[in-house]
This record gives sequence, structure tokens and C-alpha cells, in this order.
Amino acid sequence: MVRTLIWDGQALVLLDQTRLPREETFRRCTTYQEVAQAIKGLVVRGAPAIGVAAAYGLALAARASTATTPEALRADLRAAAAVLRQTRPTAVNLFWAIDRVLQAAAAAPDDPEAIRQAVLATAHRLAEEDDRANRQIGAFGADLIPPGARILTHCNAGGLGTTGYGTALGIIRTAVAQGKPLEVLVDETRPVLQGARLTTWELLQEGIPTTLITDNMAGFLMARGEVSLVLVGADRIAANGDVANKIGTYSLAVLAQAHRIPFYVAAPTSTVDLAVPSGAEIPIEERSPEEVTTIAGQPIAPAGVRVRNPAFDITPHRLVTAIITEVGVVAPPYSETLPAAVARARQGGS
Amino acid sequence: MVRTLIWDGQALVLLDQTRLPREETFRRCTTYQEVAQAIKGLVVRGAPAIGVAAAYGLALAARASTATTPEALRADLRAAAAVLRQTRPTAVNLFWAIDRVLQAAAAAPDDPEAIRQAVLATAHRLAEEDDRANRQIGAFGADLIPPGARILTHCNAGGLGTTGYGTALGIIRTAVAQGKPLEVLVDETRPVLQGARLTTWELLQEGIPTTLITDNMAGFLMARGEVSLVLVGADRIAANGDVANKIGTYSLAVLAQAHRIPFYVAAPTSTVDLAVPSGAEIPIEERSPEEVTTIAGQPIAPAGVRVRNPAFDITPHRLVTAIITEVGVVAPPYSETLPAAVARARQGGS
Repeated sequence: MVRTLIWDGQALVLLDQTRLPREETFRRCTTYQEVAQAIKGLVVRGAPAIGVAAAYGLALAARASTATTPEALRADLRAAAAVLRQTRPTAVNLFWAIDRVLQAAAAAPDDPEAIRQAVLATAHRLAEEDDRANRQIGAFGADLIPPGARILTHCNAGGLGTTGYGTALGIIRTAVAQGKPLEVLVDETRPVLQGARLTTWELLQEGIPTTLITDNMAGFLMARGEVSLVLVGADRIAANGDVANKIGTYSLAVLAQAHRIPFYVAAPTSTVDLAVPSGAEIPIEERSPEEVTTIAGQPIAPAGVRVRNPAFDITPHRLVTAIITEVGVVAPPYSETLPAAVARARQGGS
Repeated sequence: MVRTLIWDGQALVLLDQTRLPREETFRRCTTYQEVAQAIKGLVVRGAPAIGVAAAYGLALAARASTATTPEALRADLRAAAAVLRQTRPTAVNLFWAIDRVLQAAAAAPDDPEAIRQAVLATAHRLAEEDDRANRQIGAFGADLIPPGARILTHCNAGGLGTTGYGTALGIIRTAVAQGKPLEVLVDETRPVLQGARLTTWELLQEGIPTTLITDNMAGFLMARGEVSLVLVGADRIAANGDVANKIGTYSLAVLAQAHRIPFYVAAPTSTVDLAVPSGAEIPIEERSPEEVTTIAGQPIAPAGVRVRNPAFDITPHRLVTAIITEVGVVAPPYSETLPAAVARARQGGS
């Protein structure tokens, strides 16, 4: 468990993930613009975490608004929401969380103070729901982890990508708490190195056996029988079960299939976007070339070289063994089981 | 064409590949021990280049030896050869080149000066043969490159990995010289970043359209139809056609097959090791953890994290569309066609 984001009563305090593992520093955001900047700059990242951060961003916008009528305040919130929506295009939890807050503002009594309270209460509720969902994912997923498993994970689907417990790493935390021996193989996850910087940091803090590899070593280890299963998070899951996740996930899924290794995705149902029929319709963020051409401020390639930098890729549903959600393990055929899981979560949720 | 290594009459001058692309500096080796250190420390790398460098290392050993009898000089050469053989275990060209030089020393007249001359002449001949083989590989391979091809390559099978023209990049040079439009996609090739640092540098110098990607983006681009073929070098090819090459090559081969994209290996027959029946018997070098945990001197992972760092992997022959050698394009069944190609090369060679 890590403290990814904390509401201190006045501001949103974020553990600055751009500085890990070298420095454990916090960024205090007192305006929604600062929250938007923090999301864009990867101070906070991970689909569930940016959803909750954006919700608190709206709480800051509500607090800062000088509106004296409910209509004016709701308009200010919509303006702030538009800015927050522009930060990152792929993770759907961002849009889902913003919608939840705007709905709460619309449903609140026609009084600015009541709206402000509803907005902050919804942000708190989203944070609590995320933590609860992570623990439920952990319990359902741990059943899939055999004792002695060597689990390959990619990027950071951990406490740092959520309110603190993690999706993929939440499952690992739960399995470890159950006393299962296991080892985690961590892809470094170029270009931003979330695996090397964040996932190893998080796992080592809890003494979980961890081995770091470069992304291109996964196939080698699979061929040698040194990987029991692949376990990753998701940024958006289409209605047919196609999964958008950190660049490199798709290659792992192809390799897992070639080696007959289970490929699991851990994500709350808030990551499922039933409005999107397949992965082909999920927008893929292209980030700046500098993420590829420099590391820790050092250039690693000749100046001016052309670069591609898609931050995510799409894993087709046929390569996904199961999706582990807070309402249970969802198996193919996803076009039937995913809508059912989302409906179940909405009934059971608050 | 680059100047990877030059014999200046007194010493072996190596372009220091650890400092590219930031600095174009040379390392002058006046002893075989310095050559061994340069091979181990990746000042010179690439299977054909380290073979030729080791041959010049023996020329330096012969020159430095104070032996006054042919037996004593040959013993000094065997001692130097033992040190040079210890530098890197996977690329067979190293052992092949050392054997060629020792054979020349054995066959020379029983006179120390004649042995010294034979050793240096053999080193020169190996360098010339490498250049000729590269150009022949280029001619045979260019026929396989369709106009407008988007060629994905990994690591550096370029001029920097040979005496100057390159195997995989030699094919690209030849195709460009023939006027074929093409684009090269370069895997950065973690951990040592030979793709980002060396291959892009080499291609940009000749104005060849080049795009740098991280290793984990290859699958994404293949899924989008943005890769026409994969073209890599090799460090050792077993008698059955299994290919040892830079870590990550195997993953590319699995991805290429999944996307029905040709996967070509470019290598001189000196890379073929008929004494090794399959890839399972090829030793895989494990290098230091620091190559993974630091980049350009900067730590990118928590101190003390466990690391795997295999420098090579094995691509099984069933994933290899063809092997492009100096005596022609070798296709399956490799257990028949590879020995025939090696025999053809030995007949045609000097």
C-alpha cells in the first residue's frame, strides 16, 4: 500500500511519480489547472489514479469558483472538466470520474454550497470505491495465482496507479498476504520506465521477490519456462474485450499465447467502456519524442532522429485469458460477459 | 560505410562505440590485452567486427612477443588467444577468426618473423573478406527488399558491427544504392541501446530515412501494417538454423510470424557453427546488472533490485524465413542448406 494521492482538506497532495525512485517528494495542487498539469506530466498516472485525481481537481475548481448561483457554478465546473478531459485521451477512467462528479453536481440541490459539498463528497467516494474495488480485484485474482508462480507484469498497475492498493499488484499483494510464495518479473517499460522506477520500488518496499528485466527479455524467459503467467492492468477495455494498455502489452500477449501462458488483465469495471465496440475505436496517445530520445535528461540517440512514441497499444480480446474485476473474474465471450459485469457493478455500487 | 577498425601499421585503432553518438572518438590498442578489454567493454562489438579485432589482437601479441624460436612464438600466440577467447562467449566469429590466425601461424615457415608476417597478413585478409562478404550479402539481400519497404531492424548489424559495410545494414545500403525507396524502423535495443545510439547514427549519416522506436513498440507497428519485413544480424547460427542474436530478436520473430511478416537474418557463413547442432547448445552471455539499472550513468531503478541481463536469445529456425549469406540466400530446410552454403563459401574463399 502506497499513498498515491491524499486530500489534505485544502488541496490534493500527489506523490510525484516522475521523481521516483530517487526522491520521495510530494506535489501539492491547489487549483484544477495544477491537477491537469500533474496528470499531463505523469506526476500522477495510472487509469484509476488519474480518474480520482481529476475528481479532486473538480473539487478544487468548485472551491475556487466565485459563482454565486448554481448555474454559474455548474458552468465553471464544466469548464474545468473540459480542461481536465484534455490531459490524456486513452484511459477512460478519467472521463468516467469526471462524468460522475458532474452528475453529482447536477443532482445536488440548487445551492452553490451544496454543489461544492456534493462535488467533494463524490471525489472522496470515488477514492473509497477505488480502494474497495482494488481489494475485491485482489481477492478474485489471487485465486488464479498458483503457489510458486512467476508473474510477469508490465508498467505499473500498482498502488501508484490507483489510490494505493493496485489492480495487478493488488492481486499480488493479496496472494502474498495469503502466504503464497511467488516472484514478480517486472518489465522496465520503456520509454517512461514505470516498471523499473515505480513497480520495483513498490514491490521492494513490501519485500516481495522482484526481478527487473528489459522489455525485450520477456520472450527469452517465456521460452525457458520461467514465466507462469502475465498480469497487467488496463487503461480502457472495449465492449468486445479488446484492451488498451501501456505500449508493449500487446507484444506480451502475443508471446504469452505462443508459449501457452495465461494472460490476465486486472481492472475495475470503470475501465470498461461499453460505448466503444472494439479496440480500433480507442484513441492512442502519442507522446513527445523526448521520452524516447532522452533518459534521465541524458540524450541516448542522435539529435533530430525521427521517433514514434505511442503510449498505449491494443491487445485483441482473443489473446486475453480473463479480465479480473471487482465483481469477479470475467471470461470470454467478453461481448456477453463484460456488459453483465458492468451491470452487476452498477447495481452493487453506491 | 563507417570506419569501425583501422590497422595503422603499429596498432589497432577502434571507433569507441561506447561513446557514440555523443562523441566520435577512437581507442588505439597497442597490446592484445587492450584489444581484449575493448571487446569485453563493447568499444568494438558485433560478431564480425570482434572476430577481425581479435585477429589484429593476435598480430599485436606476435609483435610484442620476445620469442626467438617459432615454438615459443606459437606458444605466446596460443596464450594470447586464450585471453581473447574469454572476452565474449556467444558470437562464434570470435573463435573462428582466432582459429584462422592460429592455423596460419602453424602453417607459416618455422621462423618467428615469417610467423609474425603470416599472423598480420591473416588479420588483413579477414578484414578484407569481411568487407567482401558484407557486399555480397548486400547484393543477395537487396533482391528481397521490395520498393517502399518498411524494414524493422534490431541492435546494430551495421558497418559498426563489421569492418564497415554491415550485414543487415549492408543490405539496406545496397537497396538504397539501387534507388529503392525504403524506411528503416530501428529498435532502440535495451539495455545497451545499440539501435538508438549506433544504428540511427550510421543510417542518418547516409541520409537513409530512419525512425527510432522502443523495443516494445514493434508489435504495435506490425499490427497496424507498418512493418514490411524484419531484418537482423546474428552472433551464431547452429547447424539446424537456430539463430543466436541480440536479446529481443526472438520476440520480434514470434511477432513477425503472428503477423505473417518475413523474418530475415543476414550473416556471413563465418557465423554458422556446424559443430553446434541447435540453439540449445549456444552459450548465452549474462552481462552485468548495471547495464539494466543505469542509463548514461543515471540510476533508473531502486538500488539493490535483482536483475536478469541475458545479452542474447535464440530464435528457432522455424521462425526464420531465410538466412542471407555471402554465397546466397539460404532457405529451409537449414540442416541441409546451411552445411552446403558453408562448403560453398570454403571452396570459393581463399
